[in-house]
Amino acid sequence: MDEARRGGRRRPGLKLLLFLHASLFLNVFFFCYLVLSRHQPPPGWARSAARDAEAVAAIDCSGHGRAFLAGGGLPACECNACYSGDDCSQLLLDCPADADSEDPLFLEPYWQQHASTSSIVLPGWQCMSSQTMGGDFISAELDRHVRLLHKAAENAITDGKFILFGSEVAELLHALVHALSADNASSSPACLVASAPHNPFGRRQHECIGIRSNYAKGSVSPATKIIEYVTSPNDPDGLLQQSVLGASAVIHDHAYFWPHYSSIPAPADEDIMLFTISKISGHAGIRLWWAVIKDQKTYQKAAEYMSLNTMVVSCDVQLRVLKLIRVVIAEMGKGGGIFEFGYKTLKTRWSKLHKLVSSSNRFSIQPLLPRYCNYFKRIRDPSPAYAWLKCETEEDKDCYSVLKTSGITSRSGTLFEANSHYTRLSLVKTEDDFDLLTMRMEALLSKELIASS
Amino acid sequence: MDEARRGGRRRPGLKLLLFLHASLFLNVFFFCYLVLSRHQPPPGWARSAARDAEAVAAIDCSGHGRAFLAGGGLPACECNACYSGDDCSQLLLDCPADADSEDPLFLEPYWQQHASTSSIVLPGWQCMSSQTMGGDFISAELDRHVRLLHKAAENAITDGKFILFGSEVAELLHALVHALSADNASSSPACLVASAPHNPFGRRQHECIGIRSNYAKGSVSPATKIIEYVTSPNDPDGLLQQSVLGASAVIHDHAYFWPHYSSIPAPADEDIMLFTISKISGHAGIRLWWAVIKDQKTYQKAAEYMSLNTMVVSCDVQLRVLKLIRVVIAEMGKGGGIFEFGYKTLKTRWSKLHKLVSSSNRFSIQPLLPRYCNYFKRIRDPSPAYAWLKCETEEDKDCYSVLKTSGITSRSGTLFEANSHYTRLSLVKTEDDFDLLTMRMEALLSKELIASS
Repeated sequence: MDEARRGGRRRPGLKLLLFLHASLFLNVFFFCYLVLSRHQPPPGWARSAARDAEAVAAIDCSGHGRAFLAGGGLPACECNACYSGDDCSQLLLDCPADADSEDPLFLEPYWQQHASTSSIVLPGWQCMSSQTMGGDFISAELDRHVRLLHKAAENAITDGKFILFGSEVAELLHALVHALSADNASSSPACLVASAPHNPFGRRQHECIGIRSNYAKGSVSPATKIIEYVTSPNDPDGLLQQSVLGASAVIHDHAYFWPHYSSIPAPADEDIMLFTISKISGHAGIRLWWAVIKDQKTYQKAAEYMSLNTMVVSCDVQLRVLKLIRVVIAEMGKGGGIFEFGYKTLKTRWSKLHKLVSSSNRFSIQPLLPRYCNYFKRIRDPSPAYAWLKCETEEDKDCYSVLKTSGITSRSGTLFEANSHYTRLSLVKTEDDFDLLTMRMEALLSKELIASS
Repeated sequence: MDEARRGGRRRPGLKLLLFLHASLFLNVFFFCYLVLSRHQPPPGWARSAARDAEAVAAIDCSGHGRAFLAGGGLPACECNACYSGDDCSQLLLDCPADADSEDPLFLEPYWQQHASTSSIVLPGWQCMSSQTMGGDFISAELDRHVRLLHKAAENAITDGKFILFGSEVAELLHALVHALSADNASSSPACLVASAPHNPFGRRQHECIGIRSNYAKGSVSPATKIIEYVTSPNDPDGLLQQSVLGASAVIHDHAYFWPHYSSIPAPADEDIMLFTISKISGHAGIRLWWAVIKDQKTYQKAAEYMSLNTMVVSCDVQLRVLKLIRVVIAEMGKGGGIFEFGYKTLKTRWSKLHKLVSSSNRFSIQPLLPRYCNYFKRIRDPSPAYAWLKCETEEDKDCYSVLKTSGITSRSGTLFEANSHYTRLSLVKTEDDFDLLTMRMEALLSKELIASS
């Protein structure tokens, strides 16, 4: 009986021991978990941000605007031009059509259709370091993807060349003009020359004063170094351009050299080529340009200049652009890419515009010459971002004003160093903007028909 | 029976009619839904981005690094300095402690603790417009929140003043120097003077050459307009500064005038005050500065300069900073804010550093004078971002090298226009960086003890 009693006493003791071991094991487990995971945020931490974003996007803006988080954290609609009301359903009757703005909002539906693959979550701790992965403030991943993009679009040779990123074209031009200027401090810095018509945005500071006509006459002082600035396709007229001045250095602005806007006869292969995310994906609010530079010394001097002047691209911008470029490349492979989408949209718009203007004697737009496109592998018409409208009659000296009176805001040819008979119409905004533009053009052209009958 | 048959025939006919009506109604419903929602992305579109982000954050980096999306879309660890390996678990023995970098990574754990409230989802279609809500490229919401932040932190008066945003301090200084320079083109542009020691980062281009000593002697040419640049708290020594030169214009750099680093005796109320998100939230990778400007004409001239030179803050950056500031303000109200977190962390580090150095005759750091803080409502020690270390002995002429030999990378006093007996130690990096710094300091000081015994 004693043995039984002793065995009985042993069994509760054993149970207690087992329980204690289990408890201690749990202690160690919890401790390790807490210690090891102290730098890891709790599971599901991103869901609330995802839900917030979805709730905002679900706001109905009648197809005439987009929702955003307004003051006090409440979602509201940002309406397309000439639409108003909480849900953007009210069309303002006397509102001028905006054919001035350059924002490529025609690509917005593309991103809405690719909502789940193109969105990015930025956790609170992202971008605290001033060095992004890859050093020297520039993500090596972004560099790699830009090269992949050019390869996939077949629009530029980047092998063996260097890529320099900047937030604005003005920044890159500061750096490039500095790099291309003569080393000796006594000579004046290099200056930029472009052939008219041209868009001087972002480079007024570096423009050669009174050079172009002198250059043509061969009377430019040899002490001044000329850099020719060639935009191809050109803004405002969409024409593919070559350098013509025989300058010692040329900068090619290829912002629009993508299949949305232009045939790609062959990949561009010049010494200095500029591109921007804005015209590729449509994100005019994200500021990122890059220069593809052939000469290593030029690249190093420009990069050094940018570093000294803290011309740094924000980490957030790099991450966002990397995501967008990844999606563009991935979708190209599936045959439903942004170039096809963009081209189809602009082609339709050009077709409508041509129909309108072709019957007019008062107005004309630039002829569009079909050309073989190496990207689409067929002959195609160009579909430039802008129509370069000409007021043909003598009375319509100021084409900008003619359109302004008829409720269309364009951009005067005088701002492109052309004469005032020209004005530029932006065709890259939303469908609403284009519809309004065609409506006003129809009204304007119908007056011409009435007058001539 | 005929009637019954007719009734029977009528009932199937009635059923068919009802069914047809229901079907037509459904068609109309589906059509409307599709048409109305054609601009709305499908439900749950943000979840996949949320899951991706959570999967990346869940990667174990041993508490010595952070996960990010590397090449090919695969997550990898970015290790803290001197740690390596796939999971950052290997400490490199001979690696120098980084006490040079200024990235406020000491705030990283704060954001990891606030993961769910501080994360932001950027849908693919965000930031396509170059105009953010509020016009003129600057979000009115960001302006409003910056003012709220200054009010809550009680560190600056913004009422009746104007706020100008820029990506880099260099940009704001270009604009401000331009705005403060005399109108007539013949006079030379204004230049900046600061008292040593000072950090000339971002303003070398505008520094008056040979002015300071001349100014003191009263022999500066009256044609040159002087702008005094006052950093308070100062970089490198953390001291609160006043303007001393009696110049006609003063720019106050208050980047560190936040409770993490300094007592706030009273809200700053000068004519031009500079701040950056980097030192507030710790996001050195996000580039955003702002100037609080009292004079409207100065503000307008500076804003115009920035607009002409396309010095625009990216939409993504604005959205991100807006989110971070919202969290900072919200958490302050709950008593668990970033200022408390930052102050506690730096106070602990200063305490450790003082213990180390106080026993040394070879080294000294700047004395920290307690002062009443209007934010914490009590007397507190400063907890500056940097220790201004002095090598006291004659042999240690080059303090930077003394530390370098002992495995500490600091920033030489000569870079702050001080003599080489001084060097700056950054105390704002990760806990790993600070631990390594103290470890190397201990080794260095123990040599001193051995030598003196």
